Amino acid sequence: MGKRAATVEHSTQSNYEAVTVTHADLDLVVDFSAKTISGTAQLKYEVKRSGCDALILDTRDLAIQEVSVDGAACQFTLASPHKGSTRVRFATSPASTALQWLSPAQTAGGEHPYLFTQCQAIHARSLVPCQDTPGAKLTYAARVRVPEVMTALMSAVPVDEPGRTGQESGDGTRTFSFAQQVPIPSYLLALAVGQLESRELGPVSRVYSEPSMVAAGAYEFSETDAFLQAAASVAGPYVWGRYDLLLLPPSFPYGGMENPCLTFVTPTLLAGDRSLANVVAHEIAHSWTGNLVTNASWEHFWLNEGWTMWLERRILAKLYGEATYEFHASLGYLDLREAVETWGAGHDFTCLVPDLSGGIDPDDAFSTIPYEKGFYFLHYLQTLVGGPEVFEAFFKDYIKAFSFKTVTSDGFKAYFLDYFTDSTPGVGGIDWDLWFYQPGMPPNVNSYDASLAESAYALAQSWHTSDLMGLGTGSTAGPAKASTTDLDGWSASQKVAFLDKLGELRSMKPFTPATTRRMQELYHFDDSKNAELRRAWYSLCIKAGDLAILPQTLAFLSEQGRMKYLRPLYRALYAHPKSRQAALDTFAAHREMYHPIAAKMVATDLQMPAAV
Amino acid sequence: MGKRAATVEHSTQSNYEAVTVTHADLDLVVDFSAKTISGTAQLKYEVKRSGCDALILDTRDLAIQEVSVDGAACQFTLASPHKGSTRVRFATSPASTALQWLSPAQTAGGEHPYLFTQCQAIHARSLVPCQDTPGAKLTYAARVRVPEVMTALMSAVPVDEPGRTGQESGDGTRTFSFAQQVPIPSYLLALAVGQLESRELGPVSRVYSEPSMVAAGAYEFSETDAFLQAAASVAGPYVWGRYDLLLLPPSFPYGGMENPCLTFVTPTLLAGDRSLANVVAHEIAHSWTGNLVTNASWEHFWLNEGWTMWLERRILAKLYGEATYEFHASLGYLDLREAVETWGAGHDFTCLVPDLSGGIDPDDAFSTIPYEKGFYFLHYLQTLVGGPEVFEAFFKDYIKAFSFKTVTSDGFKAYFLDYFTDSTPGVGGIDWDLWFYQPGMPPNVNSYDASLAESAYALAQSWHTSDLMGLGTGSTAGPAKASTTDLDGWSASQKVAFLDKLGELRSMKPFTPATTRRMQELYHFDDSKNAELRRAWYSLCIKAGDLAILPQTLAFLSEQGRMKYLRPLYRALYAHPKSRQAALDTFAAHREMYHPIAAKMVATDLQMPAAV
Ligand SMILES: [Zn+2]
Ligand SMILES: [Zn+2]
Repeated sequence: MGKRAATVEHSTQSNYEAVTVTHADLDLVVDFSAKTISGTAQLKYEVKRSGCDALILDTRDLAIQEVSVDGAACQFTLASPHKGSTRVRFATSPASTALQWLSPAQTAGGEHPYLFTQCQAIHARSLVPCQDTPGAKLTYAARVRVPEVMTALMSAVPVDEPGRTGQESGDGTRTFSFAQQVPIPSYLLALAVGQLESRELGPVSRVYSEPSMVAAGAYEFSETDAFLQAAASVAGPYVWGRYDLLLLPPSFPYGGMENPCLTFVTPTLLAGDRSLANVVAHEIAHSWTGNLVTNASWEHFWLNEGWTMWLERRILAKLYGEATYEFHASLGYLDLREAVETWGAGHDFTCLVPDLSGGIDPDDAFSTIPYEKGFYFLHYLQTLVGGPEVFEAFFKDYIKAFSFKTVTSDGFKAYFLDYFTDSTPGVGGIDWDLWFYQPGMPPNVNSYDASLAESAYALAQSWHTSDLMGLGTGSTAGPAKASTTDLDGWSASQKVAFLDKLGELRSMKPFTPATTRRMQELYHFDDSKNAELRRAWYSLCIKAGDLAILPQTLAFLSEQGRMKYLRPLYRALYAHPKSRQAALDTFAAHREMYHPIAAKMVATDLQMPAAV
Repeated sequence: MGKRAATVEHSTQSNYEAVTVTHADLDLVVDFSAKTISGTAQLKYEVKRSGCDALILDTRDLAIQEVSVDGAACQFTLASPHKGSTRVRFATSPASTALQWLSPAQTAGGEHPYLFTQCQAIHARSLVPCQDTPGAKLTYAARVRVPEVMTALMSAVPVDEPGRTGQESGDGTRTFSFAQQVPIPSYLLALAVGQLESRELGPVSRVYSEPSMVAAGAYEFSETDAFLQAAASVAGPYVWGRYDLLLLPPSFPYGGMENPCLTFVTPTLLAGDRSLANVVAHEIAHSWTGNLVTNASWEHFWLNEGWTMWLERRILAKLYGEATYEFHASLGYLDLREAVETWGAGHDFTCLVPDLSGGIDPDDAFSTIPYEKGFYFLHYLQTLVGGPEVFEAFFKDYIKAFSFKTVTSDGFKAYFLDYFTDSTPGVGGIDWDLWFYQPGMPPNVNSYDASLAESAYALAQSWHTSDLMGLGTGSTAGPAKASTTDLDGWSASQKVAFLDKLGELRSMKPFTPATTRRMQELYHFDDSKNAELRRAWYSLCIKAGDLAILPQTLAFLSEQGRMKYLRPLYRALYAHPKSRQAALDTFAAHREMYHPIAAKMVATDLQMPAAV
């Protein structure tokens, strides 16, 4: 423990503090048959420290074909502070981890291939040569040539809005042009190419997807504009122009990715009842926390995700009331507990600010910790300074101060203390080092209003208690009063709250399969198509050794590739000898469908040698 | 879950049910320069099923040089039921996992090399060709030729007792002869060769070790004869003739190994105050539970270890009173909890009867679970049927019934029900399937008299609470009333109880280093040489990120190789970035010193590819 140097960025080899790339101009050609993107990147740079004699870029799995500086085939000597530009001709390779190339069979339409990128955390370097650190920001423009039946989208404003048909070149290709005029970190570079349609969601928003999903997407995400307005009321002006959504094929490994102007989302959000749309509120929130004010390195990732959880929940508070904020906060605590249990409470990755020195890939450290421990800390601070109103005013101020910049944990601390110290006595007692660097559960305890969770938690407690009292076995398992009407009128989220609470209560002793089968008899969870409910229910059953759920679980693992669902379910299946082989077989059969990041992490969960 | 086939033995390829090896006559030559044992095994067999046309033996890393049956260089056709014998000439290889060859530098004396075997669970097959399953038992005789400065010992009665100088052959070697006339499973074959001395402990007991440790061993294990007598008063006659102890070099991977006539023990028991001698009571207990009544396969290992924990604690009860039984039972519960946390409560290896099908090495499934969940179950049964007196009577009966035989979980269940059902109403309500096959913590809760643990647990609670109340940081960390006299008059075990209770209380949130340093200031744990205390204290500190303890921890990992200490400490060091490299470096430096089983398991803990 002890304080760490907050300024070292372990994830990049670039000298971005000495010479900064301020703008990239990209000309890209997408070749689906060779599974490569080739082209040129014209990089404008500013040399900031005299004596700096090189512009060092990060690359991985890129073929670099030619480099020129300031127009001349280069000689790499950069003099004292000046501006200039360099041009790199390059091509990606099939090993580029930023790219997932889908065959027609892997798409909903089945006719055309599909390509999408995922650059967070440090994959941008396998898409274009760049200073691949959140510590450096650049604007970009791009022209992307694709087969003419396809549409290209990027994390930028399309130049030919609103038609978006691109420029036909007469040779069977079409070129789309984009401009991102707000400086962004490299991890927000994004590109998707496929046969896409779109529907309008609001004045600055459309939802894009393959044709068969676009109606469902438009229904599910109809609150987008309301979320945007609520967010802006808390955080300040929306600077990105457009806020479009791209609904990806099922192998997308995350819930959402906040690529500016164009959030990427998983189709597992299509619950049919908008019950999972809070993920869209989350991605919208990133427009400020992350995209505008960016963590200076991946060790400070909680500043992106903790703040975004907070703003997501503030958006819900504005639209649905404070009780909804408290409900989601309370669910978040269960997620945090589970993450601490999974890592082990002594594990450094349970620290708010982990230590990523020594070449640790941020993907390996990724978990709910920065999200929910980050939120937990911010809620603690909010309560300490007087509640949401005071804290929202501070937040708006903080966003303004750090917009277009990056921030470290110490930078946040200094800003917070500067803002509050004179006015708020309790602030002097915050143990920042404990919050930042102590592993395990947080040093202080929040309490949430549980009115919306109350009945879910009470029902969970009654199933737990009846089992503890030895009533939990056989055909009459479960509380005596349990009935088919227990969940009448419950939202999907309340059902998930019930199951996640059981997950916590049973963390040291799973249920018997008799109990989970009895629950199924009464509550019919087996048939749910809500992805969050499936995750929670299948986990509970598998840990109970209730293999009646195996077919549904394997189907779920076969039809989507979101890590939040793959990882706990594969781990639980692997822990049970009766499902171990099924886990290995299912992974072998679908490994190619999964995104490379997801495949790598699941392989770890299945105790296979690391492989990408 | 659900009931498993209790009769399949997954760990052997042998057809021991069709044809049984009843006796082995071994002629062995130990070659320290080539690090091999070569010789012959004359195996007497009984064909039990007609139509059986082969005697299949397990081997691994053995060179088989010649096989003959009934005196003739063989033709492997065994007719209908008969008795016969086969002779195998073989040699071990350096890869044989049953053997650890120590260089002179790895011994206390530093002059001569040393060899010892560890056959449990399934390593006997790399020592001699055999039916390597606990489901088959055989007697054996052996002659072992070693360099003449050395002594050989086996898990048998020496033929030339009491001088034990062996027969000099005039060619620089000496031959020792042994006979084991009680049938034993293959995993109890054992051999040690080194420069050894001995001291008498009692009428049938000596302690052997390298000369420099023999006095310390005689002091530490002076209660051996009292343990033996107490055990026999509970379990019935001691059938093995001798009960000697061999104190091994520090790389011995277990606390003790119950090799018949000659228990192997780790030198980490040499606490100087007999506080760890309960391990000797444990190994003595195995003379009945395990060695006389043997688990039929490794899935029923809890019948060996659970019963042995129970008998160990009954021995302590006889000698030191019931409160000591309850105290150790209560500590065992903390160990059980930690094991469940480490595996995860849904993991099959937390079942009392795990599923080892599909080629799982019992070493990989090894943990405290069969010991402490097994004990927990037996204590539950004991309470149910009326307490220790009733249960001891049952135990004696059970031992008598299954002596010289093997037992499965279902066999135990049937015997128990047969004994108790008529007399004891509550017995019908035991949920055997839950106890046997449900993962995680046990289905029922025992309560123990905590009088001896009370003050330790109360002090632990006060440190825990003071931390929760936010008093636990800075230079005045800890309870206000904490003082240097808190532990006055405490036994070493009570100190360990204090630390292990803290381990449980802080399982989701480690202490701060300020708190552990404050504890050190008051209680001086850093300087302890008690191995159990070191394990408990170092774990607590490392998880707290208190790296002041790093030098002592690395020293502890460098000077002994007991898995109980290596594994949790290596895991904790690895989880913390500031000690991760030290863990890897220390392992690299000492990997050769560690036993092959220990090295394999620690490599797993350090997330290195499996390797032996
Ligand atoms: Zn996010
Ligand atoms: Zn034992």
